[in-house]
Amino acid sequence: MLPTIEWDRDKVIMIDQRKLPEEEVYVECKDYSQVAEAIEKMVIRGAPAVGVAAAFGVALGMMKIGEEEKRDKEFYLIYRRLKKTRPTARNLFWALERMKKIFEENRNLDIFRLKERLIQEALAIEREDIEKNKKIGFLGKQLIKDGDSILTHCNAGALATAGYGTALGVIRAAVEEGKRIQVYADETRPFLQGARLTCWELDKENIPVILITDNMAGYLMQKGMISLVITGADRIVRNGDTANKIGTYTVAVLAKENGLPFYVAAPLATIDFNLGQGNQILIEERDPQEVKEVGGRCITLPHVKALNPAFDVTPAKYISAIITEKGIARPPFEKSLTKLM
Amino acid sequence: MLPTIEWDRDKVIMIDQRKLPEEEVYVECKDYSQVAEAIEKMVIRGAPAVGVAAAFGVALGMMKIGEEEKRDKEFYLIYRRLKKTRPTARNLFWALERMKKIFEENRNLDIFRLKERLIQEALAIEREDIEKNKKIGFLGKQLIKDGDSILTHCNAGALATAGYGTALGVIRAAVEEGKRIQVYADETRPFLQGARLTCWELDKENIPVILITDNMAGYLMQKGMISLVITGADRIVRNGDTANKIGTYTVAVLAKENGLPFYVAAPLATIDFNLGQGNQILIEERDPQEVKEVGGRCITLPHVKALNPAFDVTPAKYISAIITEKGIARPPFEKSLTKLM
Repeated sequence: MLPTIEWDRDKVIMIDQRKLPEEEVYVECKDYSQVAEAIEKMVIRGAPAVGVAAAFGVALGMMKIGEEEKRDKEFYLIYRRLKKTRPTARNLFWALERMKKIFEENRNLDIFRLKERLIQEALAIEREDIEKNKKIGFLGKQLIKDGDSILTHCNAGALATAGYGTALGVIRAAVEEGKRIQVYADETRPFLQGARLTCWELDKENIPVILITDNMAGYLMQKGMISLVITGADRIVRNGDTANKIGTYTVAVLAKENGLPFYVAAPLATIDFNLGQGNQILIEERDPQEVKEVGGRCITLPHVKALNPAFDVTPAKYISAIITEKGIARPPFEKSLTKLM
Repeated sequence: MLPTIEWDRDKVIMIDQRKLPEEEVYVECKDYSQVAEAIEKMVIRGAPAVGVAAAFGVALGMMKIGEEEKRDKEFYLIYRRLKKTRPTARNLFWALERMKKIFEENRNLDIFRLKERLIQEALAIEREDIEKNKKIGFLGKQLIKDGDSILTHCNAGALATAGYGTALGVIRAAVEEGKRIQVYADETRPFLQGARLTCWELDKENIPVILITDNMAGYLMQKGMISLVITGADRIVRNGDTANKIGTYTVAVLAKENGLPFYVAAPLATIDFNLGQGNQILIEERDPQEVKEVGGRCITLPHVKALNPAFDVTPAKYISAIITEKGIARPPFEKSLTKLM
């Protein structure tokens, strides 16, 4: 299992995903504000992984408070800081709500027992995430045939979760039962999660992967080289509209145009039943510099303007199925997702 | 006017498009094989510019032959070398055929007059290319409204032609008559022609340009931020199917899905009436290393496989109109293009 994030009692350790695959280095966060910065700067990314990091951040922050400090004040300070790190991924808020519930149910306990309770909850979120991914893989692999060529966008692998992965979890599970799979990985500009993380992960497990630029996916589909598409998700709303890494919408449109299935793999924690439609999802706008640079090198004139929306929304009509740990939802999603929740 | 390529009697000078916008350096080709290499290595690129370069290459090659050399043998050697530089862009073959015709009509002339005839033809190809682009601009600008936001892919500007540009020529002409235009430039991986060349060209003329990654175009269309799309073309066949830089097909599909016009701007020299359908167009596969590297830096594990198709084919059904120097062709293209030819 790849080490995405680890709880180490007085610190949280993460592999620095900005530096992969060139360097495998680890970042140690010694307090919750370092965890918050690691999320913001994408040391760790991927909706489920960000959820686990936030839970660890809360536990770490509360670990460090003294007996005499106002636990309520401290908790909400930590909670609010972590909450504002990134706006789009549902799992961040879901994990923070779980931690808040535990805090509020146990706020009057002895401080040591309260801390222990929060740590246990964060560790449960981590453990359950891996279990859910394995269930997603187990259920999802039935959608994959021996010999399939699968396109994936961004990284929805072990690195995007506590381990095993969602979209890549489905691929792993299919490979584990002996299916021969060829993966095509969109490089996924600007952060290059596909080139850097998906290729690295799959290569470690000898799952055949071929890298393409994002604008080649359509060509491959046209040529009949792709059997299906699987991606992860950052937030899925009631009607099935799905926010995921920028470019996912494009891949979904291309899949539909070429008659290919487009699958989303995500735990139920990614589903936001408070929102009815995708256009209600807040899309994070990141620093345009991330678009203008690759590996620290400017690829255009330094003063040229750029946009950097980090996600887009794929309308439900382009999605063939949503693979969750409780079952595979098919359209109409409002009905099928309600049943699973 | 930007200096894409220049004839200088005993050499051909080109701006090195691999180095823009960081450095404005010029490459001097002293014989035809250096011109051929410059085309292969993309010192110069863009279908019309490659056509002009090939014509100059022939003229330069023939300039250097001595009185006693076998002019036929030399000519066909030069012709064949240049012909195999790149397979997809029609203009390369079109320009070489023009040069061959002039050679064959004048092969028995005094060698000095033959050389002069070839140089004059190459210079005519260059001059006419600029004139055609201005006509394309003049005709195409009627499709642009004041306040439009235009998405373009790759670079179909002055740098892709002898000057003025095809797709960017239409934008230039619209701006010249006072229309306020916002251009969005796809960065266009792997070679980054959008980020490096289109932004540089438009910035020089103060035409507002915003850079995006290729996978953001769909998001912008969804948000209503794009009015229309214009691209150039490398080869257009009888039914209107159009080969252009990899990713063009994707942009065209997205435009159709979002109800936006998708225009192709190209001289008639780009049209190949010998081919009936786009699937007959030979698509160049370039070195996968171009995908795995940005600015010389590897973005994935060094041993990961990659694909690098340099072009894709946009089926005619996605194309709203083809803007040529003789008029604007509308579907069905077989009929409208025949009329223009």
